[in-house]
Amino acid sequence: MTDLTTAVNTRVRLAARPVGLPKPEDWLIDEVPAPAVPPDGVVVELLVLSLDPAMRGWMNEGRSYIEPVALGDVMRAGGIGRVIASNASAWPVGTLLSGAFGVQRLAAVDGRTLARGVTRVDLQLGSLTQWLNVLGMPGMTAYFGLLDVGQPQPGETVVVSGAAGAVGQTVGQLARIKGCRAVGIAGGEAKCRFVVEELGFDACIDYKAAAPDGAARWDPVREGLRQHCPDGIDVYFDNVGGDILDTVLTRIRRRARIVVCGAISQYNATGPVRGPANYLSLLVNRARMEGMVVFDYADRYGVAVGELAGHLASGRLKSREDVVEGLRSFPDALLKLFSGENFGKLVLQVSPP
Amino acid sequence: MTDLTTAVNTRVRLAARPVGLPKPEDWLIDEVPAPAVPPDGVVVELLVLSLDPAMRGWMNEGRSYIEPVALGDVMRAGGIGRVIASNASAWPVGTLLSGAFGVQRLAAVDGRTLARGVTRVDLQLGSLTQWLNVLGMPGMTAYFGLLDVGQPQPGETVVVSGAAGAVGQTVGQLARIKGCRAVGIAGGEAKCRFVVEELGFDACIDYKAAAPDGAARWDPVREGLRQHCPDGIDVYFDNVGGDILDTVLTRIRRRARIVVCGAISQYNATGPVRGPANYLSLLVNRARMEGMVVFDYADRYGVAVGELAGHLASGRLKSREDVVEGLRSFPDALLKLFSGENFGKLVLQVSPP
Repeated sequence: MTDLTTAVNTRVRLAARPVGLPKPEDWLIDEVPAPAVPPDGVVVELLVLSLDPAMRGWMNEGRSYIEPVALGDVMRAGGIGRVIASNASAWPVGTLLSGAFGVQRLAAVDGRTLARGVTRVDLQLGSLTQWLNVLGMPGMTAYFGLLDVGQPQPGETVVVSGAAGAVGQTVGQLARIKGCRAVGIAGGEAKCRFVVEELGFDACIDYKAAAPDGAARWDPVREGLRQHCPDGIDVYFDNVGGDILDTVLTRIRRRARIVVCGAISQYNATGPVRGPANYLSLLVNRARMEGMVVFDYADRYGVAVGELAGHLASGRLKSREDVVEGLRSFPDALLKLFSGENFGKLVLQVSPP
Repeated sequence: MTDLTTAVNTRVRLAARPVGLPKPEDWLIDEVPAPAVPPDGVVVELLVLSLDPAMRGWMNEGRSYIEPVALGDVMRAGGIGRVIASNASAWPVGTLLSGAFGVQRLAAVDGRTLARGVTRVDLQLGSLTQWLNVLGMPGMTAYFGLLDVGQPQPGETVVVSGAAGAVGQTVGQLARIKGCRAVGIAGGEAKCRFVVEELGFDACIDYKAAAPDGAARWDPVREGLRQHCPDGIDVYFDNVGGDILDTVLTRIRRRARIVVCGAISQYNATGPVRGPANYLSLLVNRARMEGMVVFDYADRYGVAVGELAGHLASGRLKSREDVVEGLRSFPDALLKLFSGENFGKLVLQVSPP
């Protein structure tokens, strides 16, 4: 067992509730002595942390689907760590665990949390970063959002925004595996090329594409959907909201399903959120828009991990992670999500593996 | 058989596509000779016509769930008429028929339309005006929208806007019959009193209620929902859109269902439609917003008419119609729908019964 008496914990705490994009002053990074090992628990040393758009919502005042992070608390984050000290015989030193350990180097985990809030990580099924991606929350969100809420049928057209991102990459690949056409929407040529050439989507629309010479009122998403979804859209998996959602609404088919998974374009809005002005397309098309929160499916994660790990092993499913190093990079790294700078699932590497 | 050679047909035709509220100049009323009796059809003399918010959409350019009315054509409308001349032995003179006969006194109906586009009206089941209301399109819309799309469970709270209107009155009463709490939203004290005292809703919120002394930022719908739906809303049947939809979204419960039936607040908008800014409440609450078009349920109208007529006969279901007389009143009468002036299902009486 590691000697914790001299170990230091680095923590990233929420200092202020951001207005718009989080600023450096919204964070407080400190170093404190290592936590004590709980009588029925363990201390985990973090290896990798998951950086997710949802984090922005957790920083706001007011309850959403989960309590906000309190001012002064360690920022909430999912991550994977190694048990370095244990008072729980079922979780010996060396065990790899995934859980909401927070943005810090060392986390004390009590027996209650071990019983219901952590997952054992099996590196036979996927790498550490894949366990934060396809086999972690993004993968679970893609799996249950697409299959349970979107209910795609073979031959249907599935469109997903944020296609190169953590959730989007799995949504599109899974749609293909289920016999659908998959069309992604992503920002920039490189991402679009990756989505089609590496991940095997049928097409990808670059929402940042420049207007061709002489085009008035250029909307690359509208043009792209016209070209790649000439018969309309059966399932739209929405990670972004805003203008793109509005444009997609003009192209949905009868009985289309829109999965409301996120709205990253609106998370840093300081004014009111932009509602989808074309929502009456739901009426005309007898279509559905439905929200989902991945935690509701916790008792079926095992099934999803099993299926997704199988696809990883067979090579039918690929994953891409964008790894940033060092806890102190957290404030800057988080911003990459909102600028669209990250390429694949954004992961913070805390300690070398 | 009536002699049609000397009979005159009065017609209300669409002269121009309105911008905003329809103006008198958007209509052209003329008198022409009676139509000939189709070789396999009938001529119907209209008794009552249905005036509906959806008519506003049919006047716009561009296909929605149904073709727009062409400029110069008789305005589309559902109505009930009596066969006054017949070349179709199954439809003798005197037969009462409901169908899309248009805003005119006399309509020629061919054999094809008789076969698939009309309903026999049985005055044993309800009055002429009830056949345009509870037993007609509004009743069918309420029945299938609430039961098929809203899927209310006993004990749940159902909120409906336009509660004193044609669709709303049946939605709320049907919700009560199915064991739900029914809360209406309507404009004005008189309508709200009617909804509660006559129709038996549990409560009705007056969205036009004046602010109590000293209230800043008064929102009567927000206050009313807080008071009458303290545990939130399970089903919202939306006829109005706009601000009321946005306020309701802040009060929905987990797995709530929002039935998008209409958006009368937006139909005359000359700018872009206002999207529901609070739509992310769907995500947080794992809720659903789904559109419906009544025509999809045509093969089950018979079942609905049977059930609703039974409730009418037993006195569990009441109906209210607002009757305006004379074809030439059509342009003004239609505007009552958008000012909220009508009280109950708006009906135009063409000929005395």
